[in-house]
Amino acid sequence: MPYVGVGIQQHSASLRSQRMLRAYAALTGGILVSLFVMGMGKLQSDRGVPLPRQETVEEIQDQIGQVLMEAIKGDNIKANLRALTKEPHQAGTKANDRVAKTIENLYLSAGLQRVHTLTYDVLLSYPDWDKPNTVSINNRFGSAVFTSKGVSDAILPDEQGAPHAGHQWLAYSAPGKVEGDIVYCNSGTPKDFEEIKKMGIDVTGKIAMMRYGEGFRGDKVAEAQQNGAKAAILFSDPAESVWMPPQGVQRGSIMKLNGDVLTPLYPAKPGAYKSRTIDEAKEKGVIPSIPALPISYDTAYEILSRMNGRPVPPEWQGNVNVTYRMGPGLRDGHKTTVDVKSSLTTKHVHNVVGYIPGQDEEDRYVILGNHFDAWVYGSIDPNSGTSILAEVARAMVETMNTTTWRPSRTMVFAAWDAEEYGLLGSTEYVEEFVQQLGGRAVAYLNMDCFAGNSSLDIRTIPSLRDLAVDVAKRIPNHLEEQVHLGRKTLYDTWVRAFPGANDQPDMKIPGGGSDHTGFLTFAGVPVIDFNMVNTTRNSYPLYHSLFETPFLNEHLYDKPDFAMHRAIGRYWAELARTLSDSPVLPINVTKIAVEMKDVYVLELRKALNSLPANPNLMEAKQQVDYLEKGAQKFLTRAQYFAEHAGRVQVEIAENPFDQRKLRGVNERIMMAERCFINPRGMPGAPENRHVLYSISEKDSYSGKIMAAVYDAIDEYSASTDKKKAGRRVAEQISIIYHSVHCATNTLKHFF
Amino acid sequence: MPYVGVGIQQHSASLRSQRMLRAYAALTGGILVSLFVMGMGKLQSDRGVPLPRQETVEEIQDQIGQVLMEAIKGDNIKANLRALTKEPHQAGTKANDRVAKTIENLYLSAGLQRVHTLTYDVLLSYPDWDKPNTVSINNRFGSAVFTSKGVSDAILPDEQGAPHAGHQWLAYSAPGKVEGDIVYCNSGTPKDFEEIKKMGIDVTGKIAMMRYGEGFRGDKVAEAQQNGAKAAILFSDPAESVWMPPQGVQRGSIMKLNGDVLTPLYPAKPGAYKSRTIDEAKEKGVIPSIPALPISYDTAYEILSRMNGRPVPPEWQGNVNVTYRMGPGLRDGHKTTVDVKSSLTTKHVHNVVGYIPGQDEEDRYVILGNHFDAWVYGSIDPNSGTSILAEVARAMVETMNTTTWRPSRTMVFAAWDAEEYGLLGSTEYVEEFVQQLGGRAVAYLNMDCFAGNSSLDIRTIPSLRDLAVDVAKRIPNHLEEQVHLGRKTLYDTWVRAFPGANDQPDMKIPGGGSDHTGFLTFAGVPVIDFNMVNTTRNSYPLYHSLFETPFLNEHLYDKPDFAMHRAIGRYWAELARTLSDSPVLPINVTKIAVEMKDVYVLELRKALNSLPANPNLMEAKQQVDYLEKGAQKFLTRAQYFAEHAGRVQVEIAENPFDQRKLRGVNERIMMAERCFINPRGMPGAPENRHVLYSISEKDSYSGKIMAAVYDAIDEYSASTDKKKAGRRVAEQISIIYHSVHCATNTLKHFF
Repeated sequence: MPYVGVGIQQHSASLRSQRMLRAYAALTGGILVSLFVMGMGKLQSDRGVPLPRQETVEEIQDQIGQVLMEAIKGDNIKANLRALTKEPHQAGTKANDRVAKTIENLYLSAGLQRVHTLTYDVLLSYPDWDKPNTVSINNRFGSAVFTSKGVSDAILPDEQGAPHAGHQWLAYSAPGKVEGDIVYCNSGTPKDFEEIKKMGIDVTGKIAMMRYGEGFRGDKVAEAQQNGAKAAILFSDPAESVWMPPQGVQRGSIMKLNGDVLTPLYPAKPGAYKSRTIDEAKEKGVIPSIPALPISYDTAYEILSRMNGRPVPPEWQGNVNVTYRMGPGLRDGHKTTVDVKSSLTTKHVHNVVGYIPGQDEEDRYVILGNHFDAWVYGSIDPNSGTSILAEVARAMVETMNTTTWRPSRTMVFAAWDAEEYGLLGSTEYVEEFVQQLGGRAVAYLNMDCFAGNSSLDIRTIPSLRDLAVDVAKRIPNHLEEQVHLGRKTLYDTWVRAFPGANDQPDMKIPGGGSDHTGFLTFAGVPVIDFNMVNTTRNSYPLYHSLFETPFLNEHLYDKPDFAMHRAIGRYWAELARTLSDSPVLPINVTKIAVEMKDVYVLELRKALNSLPANPNLMEAKQQVDYLEKGAQKFLTRAQYFAEHAGRVQVEIAENPFDQRKLRGVNERIMMAERCFINPRGMPGAPENRHVLYSISEKDSYSGKIMAAVYDAIDEYSASTDKKKAGRRVAEQISIIYHSVHCATNTLKHFF
Repeated sequence: MPYVGVGIQQHSASLRSQRMLRAYAALTGGILVSLFVMGMGKLQSDRGVPLPRQETVEEIQDQIGQVLMEAIKGDNIKANLRALTKEPHQAGTKANDRVAKTIENLYLSAGLQRVHTLTYDVLLSYPDWDKPNTVSINNRFGSAVFTSKGVSDAILPDEQGAPHAGHQWLAYSAPGKVEGDIVYCNSGTPKDFEEIKKMGIDVTGKIAMMRYGEGFRGDKVAEAQQNGAKAAILFSDPAESVWMPPQGVQRGSIMKLNGDVLTPLYPAKPGAYKSRTIDEAKEKGVIPSIPALPISYDTAYEILSRMNGRPVPPEWQGNVNVTYRMGPGLRDGHKTTVDVKSSLTTKHVHNVVGYIPGQDEEDRYVILGNHFDAWVYGSIDPNSGTSILAEVARAMVETMNTTTWRPSRTMVFAAWDAEEYGLLGSTEYVEEFVQQLGGRAVAYLNMDCFAGNSSLDIRTIPSLRDLAVDVAKRIPNHLEEQVHLGRKTLYDTWVRAFPGANDQPDMKIPGGGSDHTGFLTFAGVPVIDFNMVNTTRNSYPLYHSLFETPFLNEHLYDKPDFAMHRAIGRYWAELARTLSDSPVLPINVTKIAVEMKDVYVLELRKALNSLPANPNLMEAKQQVDYLEKGAQKFLTRAQYFAEHAGRVQVEIAENPFDQRKLRGVNERIMMAERCFINPRGMPGAPENRHVLYSISEKDSYSGKIMAAVYDAIDEYSASTDKKKAGRRVAEQISIIYHSVHCATNTLKHFF
């Protein structure tokens, strides 16, 4: 499909704006005065560096971009990072309150307006800091032959030596001391547990030992519990965890939903009613009922080297230097004891928010967000992002002070709390303001942390892909060796690292795992979740470990000049500026239609056709035909709308006083995206409201298209009542159709 | 509470507008040119009667109102009515398709734009037109001693003599021939059935005979079915039905939900997936499983005069001239047979829609609606409204042609199909366009039919009460005897007929029963449902009978000059024009806050305090405190917002070029109303989404405030698990709080 004009290519409009600019310059005696022109910010005569009047609006915009990019300083980011990572700061701790305060001060001194915190009372989980969690191995007489220390040792004591920093634990684990026999369960996927069953090994009453990788750790523990395990152990196999020292562990949450456990769908504001009890959360599997513990691979060695039973299948063998065995149990009647001390407690958490009010559309928001709570020091996850975002804020205000630029739409800077526990801060925010975000949020731009330093990696929805690419073409490459190869921009490296369809880099659909999730799947706000990665896209070394301290950023991931950190900031800033200042929003709804027609419908048809022929599938197949026709209508309408939007843009450039038509165009672009929100959510999951991009229950990290439809197809395959199951598939497809039809109607003037 | 300025009193703005108008008049050489001023329509020099330039904007607006009101002609309404009521026209029949065509032609010749129909395929129900439904009485030998004719006789054969017009039936009755014993069940309310149980009479396997009145007929039949009855008979007791001839019956639907039975929550577009089966609908009680039949009171006499058993309680005795008895059964072993022939069938229905595009805000809609399908001829219900609405459309376009007025926002004229079956046409429309209506619909103005001729009667939400009153003060009284008493306007009679709080006439909250329901309770659009009534507010004589033909309108309800029909049209037109042309929308959100604080919270507290003290109610009571605080915050914010809106209005008047701030103000007014929509609906009733004004399941005709909360309180009273039930009450109150909090945030600039 050719690119259709609702995007950021706005040449004809710019030429006309230029004419108008000149006319105004003439009218006002050659001095550029405060104009009504949205999409180029304000040009004022009374402050800052006057911009040469003979330039085009587009050139002026580019120039503003240059000033903004230059304003982002590596030294500032480095200083921010040091300020934010002085001590371990898990959500709900006093240390994290101090980090929130640091961010508030950074935002204030940057010059943001209305800086304030939003507080929620959420259910958190902590270990007993004075009594580490342990795994021990006892001989048949009950004497311990091995007990893990439960604490990782600092490598750089200056940065990593705070009391309790090395504590090994998983948030929301049940407390308990459990003795039993170990079964090796590989990665703990449903498929792994099926295999184990086939081997004739019963996990019931056993301790499931699993390695990290292949999905969300919370799913592993839940799967183990469902299979009857009475405790779960997770270890960082060196096969997955390069650089991880033998005594390091990956911390993390094993809660299964996003947002506060006790206030589903509603904000956990202080005093708010807790509609779910802890017992109900356990019954529903939101939090586990069994103890779970992360161990280092030197502790894993102690267990693996004593394991009973047959050797594991070859692909289950990891890189600990011993032959892995299935169990159950250890040789010589040795038993394993898991001892986890943990408590659930409700605590205040605090999002920090600050604004740069838009000059033209104060009530349209471009939101830039990152969380700030960490498992330990968090110099990568998440404070690489936090430190960059504060610098982007500062650089924007500096640009306002040194040029005459003002953002056209409002910029919102958001630092989320308690992301690590399950996206708590951002989810509660979205639950509180879902209605306002639905009407006012243009886009949400998330950067959690980088996970490598080789290439951009972007997860976004089809309608923002063009924007993501276009902006990447404007950002200088931070990698000198790439520049030497002629790859001058982030885009040049990116498109080679991850080549994708339509001559664009490959961009995945945003799954879960960071704070964009609620914006997209609960509120229907378009999101970009971006990142620097290595070319395998694997999780970065030392993830969620004690060793994430600034030394890593300064010497292992980036250079002391923080060129990569700066490049990330530039990309973030330019994404936001473009979304703020483009007269017609750079959100290409045509792309949703194309994707629906050329990809989603075809894949769905394939999935249905791959099932054994059955008359009970007839209705579902009819609904696919219907959906295809709807997608074609949507495409036609979107193309027509794109032409209309182009005309309005031209009119606005010629007559900047009447913004109403433009606001109408942008309202439709925003509302077309919202059509893909089903207010009732997926069956049994009312929080998963995006009919295309909500997340599959079974694999919380991946972004699955039309999850409710494919879940219904899976249920159909497993069901004995094919008639009822076939009806459910048809119903779920008809809900997608309804969204497509809604988007089509939204682009119309009358219906 | 004093009235706070977000309403239609706009004196200061008008004065400034006047100044501006003059300035422009001067600039353009004294000729009024096309202006950017929203809120007064366009004044153009090139056509129509020039308006004298020395008048204020307000005077000009009044003058436009005068022209519009004068343009509405009784003769036209009368001619429309005759054209619409030539033949019986139930939804889904060819005759009703012809009525749709007539309306389309009326709209086209009126000069509306984009006139078209919207088609839905809905489940309808019909009798066997060739074989009337009967009730017969057989003696102990099985011989019939009485058989009802099943058909009412015409009184005015010229108007009422079409074949099958007199057929007596209820839509969605199950078919069946049932012999059994009658039990008299009074009005068929839950209370009545409880009384019957207390009397020791078992309704199981009996035929329940009930009279009309005291609630929706569908609830009566459902109650009878739930109590085990195998058939239901409904009769028009002369006590409730003045004027009804002895052989007349009230027809109607006994379907329990709004909208198509087979496509809940989604539009029944041709080809759309039917997610509910007929069997599921019966299981869920949406449509009955037993036969049900309306009978005349001469047929009722045949049964009542033969009844067995004790006399009924005095208040259950009606006006049929016989002592009513309870049964069960008839004397001398006589048995009753109910014979109902009916079928369910999916048919096309067609809404007719036409537009007058707004000059300033084409994408903001003021919607005027009425249904056109009828049980027989429908000269009152609904075509009194249909004929008036078509004339309002014509008069608006005429006013555009004879003056230079153009509505500022778009007027939408909607004629709904299949309302009588369960609000099908309007509900499917709302389900199809809920997202667009959410963003674009300013208000929905419903007039189904008049139900008397003495006074206005208005059901609306608190935020539209001021508008309803203000406009009524501008409409001349159609009743000469009232004018002689000095009551010059509709308001003067209305406020005396139904005096209410705050010196306003009493206005109920809109319940169900007509096409405003989906707009308010599913989409959150503010509605006014208005009517002319007699001072008892009873249902009008001859309701849903064969005898609703134009003679009634011309000679019994109104005078031949159709003064009342005209007055209704004037009120409708002026409501719409005010909503279209007011710069700041005349929707007073402050009133929601006041009502919440001063009425709803107090009543709720009273209800909770009236329950026996119980620690399980503590959380619920805490939530009421919380709600009260929230309501106070909302009130403070609404008052602050009202001041802000007033300032913006002044700014706009002085600088009409920049409409963005105004659009922002109006967006917030609209969105604050939408906050009271819970996207998931009431527990077990996802279609009932308005947390304040959704309709109670038990009594479909009344508008109950916060039905989900009071349902939870009722459940608490009945429940044995007080802990769980108490939690549910608290949860439902917290959902109201969330809506109030949402509305408060919506009125803020930043959050």
